[in-house]
Amino acid sequence: MSFISNDPARFSEQATAGFVAAHSDLIRAVPGGVARRTATPAGQPAIVIGGGSGHYPAFGGLVGPGLAHGAAVGNVFASPSGQQVYDVAKAVENGGGVLLTCGNYAGDVLNFNQAKERLIAEGIRAETLFVTDDISSAKPEESAKRRGIAGGLAVYKIAAAAAEAGKDLDQVVELANRVNDNIRTLGVAFTGCTLPGAHEPLFTVPEGRMGVGVGIHGEPGIDETDLPRSQELAARLWDAVIAERPEGAGDRAVIFVNGLGAVKNEELFILYNDIRALADRDGIEPVAVEVGELVTSFEMAGASLSLWWVDDEIEQLWAAPAYTSGYRKGAVQADQGEVLEDVSESAETEVGEASDASRQAARRIGGLLKTVHETIHSHADELGKLDAIAGDGDHGIGMERGARAAVEAAEAILDREPGAQTLLVQAGQAWAAQAGGTSGVLWGAVLETIGRALGDEDKPDAGRVADGVAQADEQVRKIGGAQAGDKTMVDALIPFAQALTDGVQAGRTLAEAWTEAAALATEQAEATADLMPKMGRARPHAEKSLGTPDPGAISFALIATAVGRKL
Amino acid sequence: MSFISNDPARFSEQATAGFVAAHSDLIRAVPGGVARRTATPAGQPAIVIGGGSGHYPAFGGLVGPGLAHGAAVGNVFASPSGQQVYDVAKAVENGGGVLLTCGNYAGDVLNFNQAKERLIAEGIRAETLFVTDDISSAKPEESAKRRGIAGGLAVYKIAAAAAEAGKDLDQVVELANRVNDNIRTLGVAFTGCTLPGAHEPLFTVPEGRMGVGVGIHGEPGIDETDLPRSQELAARLWDAVIAERPEGAGDRAVIFVNGLGAVKNEELFILYNDIRALADRDGIEPVAVEVGELVTSFEMAGASLSLWWVDDEIEQLWAAPAYTSGYRKGAVQADQGEVLEDVSESAETEVGEASDASRQAARRIGGLLKTVHETIHSHADELGKLDAIAGDGDHGIGMERGARAAVEAAEAILDREPGAQTLLVQAGQAWAAQAGGTSGVLWGAVLETIGRALGDEDKPDAGRVADGVAQADEQVRKIGGAQAGDKTMVDALIPFAQALTDGVQAGRTLAEAWTEAAALATEQAEATADLMPKMGRARPHAEKSLGTPDPGAISFALIATAVGRKL
Repeated sequence: MSFISNDPARFSEQATAGFVAAHSDLIRAVPGGVARRTATPAGQPAIVIGGGSGHYPAFGGLVGPGLAHGAAVGNVFASPSGQQVYDVAKAVENGGGVLLTCGNYAGDVLNFNQAKERLIAEGIRAETLFVTDDISSAKPEESAKRRGIAGGLAVYKIAAAAAEAGKDLDQVVELANRVNDNIRTLGVAFTGCTLPGAHEPLFTVPEGRMGVGVGIHGEPGIDETDLPRSQELAARLWDAVIAERPEGAGDRAVIFVNGLGAVKNEELFILYNDIRALADRDGIEPVAVEVGELVTSFEMAGASLSLWWVDDEIEQLWAAPAYTSGYRKGAVQADQGEVLEDVSESAETEVGEASDASRQAARRIGGLLKTVHETIHSHADELGKLDAIAGDGDHGIGMERGARAAVEAAEAILDREPGAQTLLVQAGQAWAAQAGGTSGVLWGAVLETIGRALGDEDKPDAGRVADGVAQADEQVRKIGGAQAGDKTMVDALIPFAQALTDGVQAGRTLAEAWTEAAALATEQAEATADLMPKMGRARPHAEKSLGTPDPGAISFALIATAVGRKL
Repeated sequence: MSFISNDPARFSEQATAGFVAAHSDLIRAVPGGVARRTATPAGQPAIVIGGGSGHYPAFGGLVGPGLAHGAAVGNVFASPSGQQVYDVAKAVENGGGVLLTCGNYAGDVLNFNQAKERLIAEGIRAETLFVTDDISSAKPEESAKRRGIAGGLAVYKIAAAAAEAGKDLDQVVELANRVNDNIRTLGVAFTGCTLPGAHEPLFTVPEGRMGVGVGIHGEPGIDETDLPRSQELAARLWDAVIAERPEGAGDRAVIFVNGLGAVKNEELFILYNDIRALADRDGIEPVAVEVGELVTSFEMAGASLSLWWVDDEIEQLWAAPAYTSGYRKGAVQADQGEVLEDVSESAETEVGEASDASRQAARRIGGLLKTVHETIHSHADELGKLDAIAGDGDHGIGMERGARAAVEAAEAILDREPGAQTLLVQAGQAWAAQAGGTSGVLWGAVLETIGRALGDEDKPDAGRVADGVAQADEQVRKIGGAQAGDKTMVDALIPFAQALTDGVQAGRTLAEAWTEAAALATEQAEATADLMPKMGRARPHAEKSLGTPDPGAISFALIATAVGRKL
């Protein structure tokens, strides 16, 4: 639903007022909508776009140099009136005629055509173009009946770039039609949206399902499936769009992944990451990539893929600069220095000399790290739930990621026969680097400290291990700043380290002492349920966690117990 | 929740891969995160930012000329590791030292400080700055404990602009601290967000309520209230922020309204529209305005207001150009032509000559228009619900808006004594212009056509009214293209027009004939429940409406009935 409003009946009016005020350097209010702050140069065809409100930056957010000259702003999801379209056209037309362009919807067609007739009756050259990129909305043989969705951006931008490049209205219309004929878009929706003032969503998608081809106003789609993984979604969108590759189109296309509102940029980037693999597979060369929220529908959760195949002329026009509130391109020159390459890997780790005993221990430690990872992996959900009570719910994910990175780092060097220190230092650094967050730093320090205590030369006996754990305990308290009773991992680590040292000093084997210490750590971890934690980013709802144990202490106890069983 | 993912444990890694691929002209992958595609000029202090994933464009989307040199990218809502921050710093530092800056959260502080120490140990000049703009997170006297939220943008941008302007690291740090000391932010949340792979939201806000001061990871706020109107929300945010105006601050400030994910731009513009009124009231001059989604938290519904008070130096640095994937400023010169003023009103309507009879009729029609508006107003919810079944749910809102505009247009000229035609033409044009959509065009045409049939000279008797309605019926069918049986307003209008003509011709009074015709229209409107409508944008779920009457036909019948009672 929408949350910020004064009066739903005045929603688009007040939104437009705020929009103009916030962007008064670029935009001015005109009857019927908004126009560029600057005058259309004499004789330049003006591009007027428009449609209902609720799709920002479409349409007012696409007005400015390099893009539209003006936009008629309708009410929420409703076409602007013919009067509005006419008024905006009159405000921006300056002798070059006007192209009125919008999505192909009954109300828009009616009103934009009405405005066109009125302009023509006054002796002003006017043309209309209704965007038809949505391949789900009619069959290929009825493509003129298709709706216009995200691909409209291409038509508006290329028409405007052509006008600014000196083309006359006929040429602008020819180019805009050429673009429209070469765009294909398919969208999906995961949830509906609720219009301002409405109490029920405009439409719904069942939980865990996805509507394929659902329109930006909730128009019915062509299919409904279970929510797929990103790779499957990418394939579904890509295969449908590529199947309609226009006749005579080359291999060069703009790829545009659009978010409708509640699907955020990180998710769109994941989707694009999977789409570009398919583009590679099918030999499509992306001449430009757009990923973002450029045609929205309030908080609708959904996304679309658009491809527009380009020729040299269209490509050049697409690349031209633009500066609007919602779309900016070609500002500061990006190539103002030496161009550097991607770097995705750090330099290879050096593996130094080590004794046979230490090498043997390292192999064993490699196996124990796998145990650590398996333990965390099988408890990740439970740890996440525990963490969600007081924290941000990512403890299980972060621990799993760190432990996996430690295993991978160990495996990457094991065939070069490292000593125990080298192996544990590498594993610890990988854990900290990949897990991130506070627990990542602390677990990385635990492994690294124990590794340094063991060294690469000496045989890692029980005393050395106990010393290493005791040093790790000190190190964790120093880095993290937590004390016993703060409801952290330290509440399990302190008694564990103490019991391990005591047990080894009392002459028990490492396995015996470790198992006893782990039992004590488990007991103490569970007892953290009675503690009140300190606040911090990792614990946004700390006070709610009274009565539940600390996930960091629990994961420490789980790991200690699992490792004990393998010793 | 998030919808697009392959493996929650690899969410931020795959998002970053897609991000780098989509913006490879601006960004390159480096160990630990991303960096500008171009090298840091020798001797220029490098600005390295960072934090958890899930806040796009923070942090990777803020890397590029005029903004950060690099960003360390942590896992979802988790600090990057010290190793990551160190690696990114090493990738971008080029002899001028490095400022490592991020929000003031325990994990980030730990990791950024660790990276700083490591850089310093290697002989590289390094400083840290932890942003503390969130006024809800600690009292003013403990401002160093505050969290960093949306205001970080100001620190990062101004630090980078200073570095690019030739300042050395000490000067950059001094300026960045000056900015941080002068930012105040307060946020609100309407819903929580669900992290990738999680099955439960990280936190929740009860429906119809608002959490005040809730952090961007759901950190607990300072208050919970009923969901306010935008004006009240603006006052709540503004008054809290302005109460902490920094000592010695002037009247000039940047105003920044940030959306957290599911609160979209139109809503943010409404909020800004109300905030600027308060800025006027309190004598704060906005030197720049930012409205948009610049620090997000997945699909969390929320918004924040930041103010940063500026001096001349800071203002100039804020205005400098920047070009990143998520923030672009100062591209194409916006003042490349004549500067035009806002135009918000059309020219005043001309009221011509009219007979006394027509003037008298116009006054009566003015009263009937009020009846029309009241009728629609009292049925707006019901009409919206009917429309939501098959359409986009805005029929009630659109009709109410149109009818209100018609009344206002009539009232605006009634004291100049217009004839019936002038009044109805003005009212009809206002209806079409303000209501928008298909129903707006059609009702505008109804009023305008009846008006032209009545004229300004003749006495509008029953025969003329009936003729006018018959012509309106024709006009509506011509413009809208609908026929009887298409489940539209026409299914009520056709029998109404016919019955009115028949009744008047049979010698009944206008009131008698109209009342009979309205009864027939009501019957026919209800019978549209049995019809299957044509598809179109206004009817995204047309097939679902079988069994419910058409809202356009029902609203026509309601209006006809109400007007009949007043004749």
